[in-house]
Amino acid sequence: MFLPKSCVGSINTASRATPTATARSAATRKRVAELKLADHVVETNAAAAAGADCVIVCVPVGASGAVAAEIGPKLKQGAIISDAGSVKGAVIAAMRPHIPTHAHFVPAHPVAGTEHSGPDAGFAELFDNRWCILTPPEGTDAAAVEKLKRFWQALGANVEVMDAEHHDLVLAVTSHLPHLIAYNIVGTAADLENGTRGEVMKYSAGGFRDFTRIAASDPTMWRDVFLNNRDAVLEMLKRFNADLAALAGAIDRGDGAALFDWFTRTRAIRRSIIEAKQA
Amino acid sequence: MFLPKSCVGSINTASRATPTATARSAATRKRVAELKLADHVVETNAAAAAGADCVIVCVPVGASGAVAAEIGPKLKQGAIISDAGSVKGAVIAAMRPHIPTHAHFVPAHPVAGTEHSGPDAGFAELFDNRWCILTPPEGTDAAAVEKLKRFWQALGANVEVMDAEHHDLVLAVTSHLPHLIAYNIVGTAADLENGTRGEVMKYSAGGFRDFTRIAASDPTMWRDVFLNNRDAVLEMLKRFNADLAALAGAIDRGDGAALFDWFTRTRAIRRSIIEAKQA
Repeated sequence: MFLPKSCVGSINTASRATPTATARSAATRKRVAELKLADHVVETNAAAAAGADCVIVCVPVGASGAVAAEIGPKLKQGAIISDAGSVKGAVIAAMRPHIPTHAHFVPAHPVAGTEHSGPDAGFAELFDNRWCILTPPEGTDAAAVEKLKRFWQALGANVEVMDAEHHDLVLAVTSHLPHLIAYNIVGTAADLENGTRGEVMKYSAGGFRDFTRIAASDPTMWRDVFLNNRDAVLEMLKRFNADLAALAGAIDRGDGAALFDWFTRTRAIRRSIIEAKQA
Repeated sequence: MFLPKSCVGSINTASRATPTATARSAATRKRVAELKLADHVVETNAAAAAGADCVIVCVPVGASGAVAAEIGPKLKQGAIISDAGSVKGAVIAAMRPHIPTHAHFVPAHPVAGTEHSGPDAGFAELFDNRWCILTPPEGTDAAAVEKLKRFWQALGANVEVMDAEHHDLVLAVTSHLPHLIAYNIVGTAADLENGTRGEVMKYSAGGFRDFTRIAASDPTMWRDVFLNNRDAVLEMLKRFNADLAALAGAIDRGDGAALFDWFTRTRAIRRSIIEAKQA
């Protein structure tokens, strides 16, 4: 997730026409106020959530349970509480016990962003034509899901609803594994002898720099993603490793036809993404 | 390499003030002429090279030996022959035997480009502030190296000279391994069940799409890179795999501190690349 980290935002359409935000650090709160990202900037999660119609918790997924515990008692009748975490199963398990039955918990994951985080990393078009996935647990109030759907649509996103387990599997492939691989290769390069490492930076335009962009993403956020979607990530990594061993074998035995077939197939995938307007 | 593939270009500053080009397919030659990328478009490599001061062979590296065999007999006294291949050791071994002693062979690799190839993929700023690496074999005429250096500088590139073996090792990390990994992960995703595969496209903005861009690169060119830089690529892959196993182990045992340390280190690498103005 690429919303400002360590941030809880709330909207109260009745008593306050304008949004309220908070963040863990005073420096972030100050910056949120300077950028006028919210009209009210308050000091605690509890204060941000009190009396709100809708609360969106944007924190590293490992912190979502503790934040829900602070917010839960403040949620008013019928309030919608949501999040923006990249993992849904673990977040639901962590947050749900703290949410009173008179409020509606609708977990969400806007699949959009850059490697930057914090209040300065936002921009108006961030969610335009990107997908936001809602994973309401069974029995969630349909009207609350519909309201949150319209919220994300108003921000420019397309909205899809699926179950949390399926979300975690799909995102393990489209987001978590790519990040793991990028972090890994950049780390491998960092371990090279000093002279060579300098050259890696210099000649990074050959492909490496695209990985470094991804590998510059927030360490806390990504640590939590991997710890909280462990099984799906390790399962996808197993498939990735098996394929990589096969490709390495083709290189080792000089099997050009196998390499050519593989590379032709992946090119077609790129075309599908361009057609899906996600390129 | 990202110059138009299957293309041989030549410059004769004496008898022709303007460049000559050829390409294997008639369709490419037609397009080169339409785009006015060269003033003379000829049908054979031999015709393109005949009488030229400087010949640049831009073909998949596996084809460089055969092209050198066609061109060699046509090279005039003092002509410079160069290439643009992503691998240098194998290209030197393949081309050098065909180049007469009265010509100067100065292998080159401009580290720049996109996933697109062909005459339409070029643009004026392609080489601006990118690096072009020259790997002249020992004993190469220093004046010829200097001339080629000025040629690439005139195109906007910075020029570095190193030996071919070192080039192949550095590029194995900065370019070949990233491509292999990208091709691999995109292939892994393509093998998923039909429904999930569709979703992979849809939610690719979470990181995956950056890999698909790289994995859309020309299959022939990249097949040849891996076949011709096998040892360095497999050596770097071995290191990559060892690191990946360690990262997977950290995820498996829930070692958040190890993950956080790794991800913090890779973020610093990104900063170095931004400082090196290659981001």
